[in-house]
Amino acid sequence: MIIREASLQDWKQIYPFFREIVAAGTSYAYPEDLNSEQARELWMGQGRTVVAVQDGLVLGTAAMGVNRPGRGNHIATGSFMVDSRHSGRGVGRALGEHLIDWARAAGYRGIQFNAVVESNTVAVKLWSSLGFQIIGTVPGAFKQLDGDYVGLHVMYLSLLD
Amino acid sequence: MIIREASLQDWKQIYPFFREIVAAGTSYAYPEDLNSEQARELWMGQGRTVVAVQDGLVLGTAAMGVNRPGRGNHIATGSFMVDSRHSGRGVGRALGEHLIDWARAAGYRGIQFNAVVESNTVAVKLWSSLGFQIIGTVPGAFKQLDGDYVGLHVMYLSLLD
Repeated sequence: MIIREASLQDWKQIYPFFREIVAAGTSYAYPEDLNSEQARELWMGQGRTVVAVQDGLVLGTAAMGVNRPGRGNHIATGSFMVDSRHSGRGVGRALGEHLIDWARAAGYRGIQFNAVVESNTVAVKLWSSLGFQIIGTVPGAFKQLDGDYVGLHVMYLSLLD
Repeated sequence: MIIREASLQDWKQIYPFFREIVAAGTSYAYPEDLNSEQARELWMGQGRTVVAVQDGLVLGTAAMGVNRPGRGNHIATGSFMVDSRHSGRGVGRALGEHLIDWARAAGYRGIQFNAVVESNTVAVKLWSSLGFQIIGTVPGAFKQLDGDYVGLHVMYLSLLD
């Protein structure tokens, strides 16, 4: 598996699992019913987008960039999607490590995730294992498909030595 | 003092203190050196914008709307600016109370502030007095004019009875 910058040609492989993940309603507070072009703008237009690829197959993707402009532009952020057909193979971890390496090399002082769904325990465990800490949890900020409200964690990793 | 929806005609009164507040570097992680048109799009284009007015004079302004789309669209957010020449007169409090009334009437379940500068004690005290709680603080996420890094609070008010 390699991680490389995404090209527009990768989108046709990304969109099916992007759509599936948003529709699953467990991890992203994105607008619903985005068409392919709107989803591509959202995912590929937020800074730098990479894909995890094996034998030409896109297994997952990450989007990364600055979390806030101006006086907040020393903190990076990122978002991740892994094709469920390829979960459990370390794709998310590899993408997370890539984000950390990239942000450190780019001179960021830290990485902030603004909205990690509390019930998405796989994600919370993964980011915790990479050193991210839960800064706080906004109660009930995410509405699950089943109608229940769960919290959104703000998570943070310092890159200062 | 009354609070009413802002019109485009109000912008010429808002922009001078908008620019002053962003340049002061104590409360907003906004892009710097925005021209008037870019600043107007940022401030007037995020949902609903109101002004606090007395005798035709704009004393302050608030922008409010949904904090996240899709599965997060039951939480509101807001931003506030008060002309420093009219500070200490309860303008910020009146705008904050207006936001709370508006969000409650619109059916939101809570209000989240994503980035309250920790050293902006006037704002932190004001929101706390209106019932907002500090959910957590991202360390060093805001770079002050003097080069020091201070934290950004995530603050939250539940509107559930």
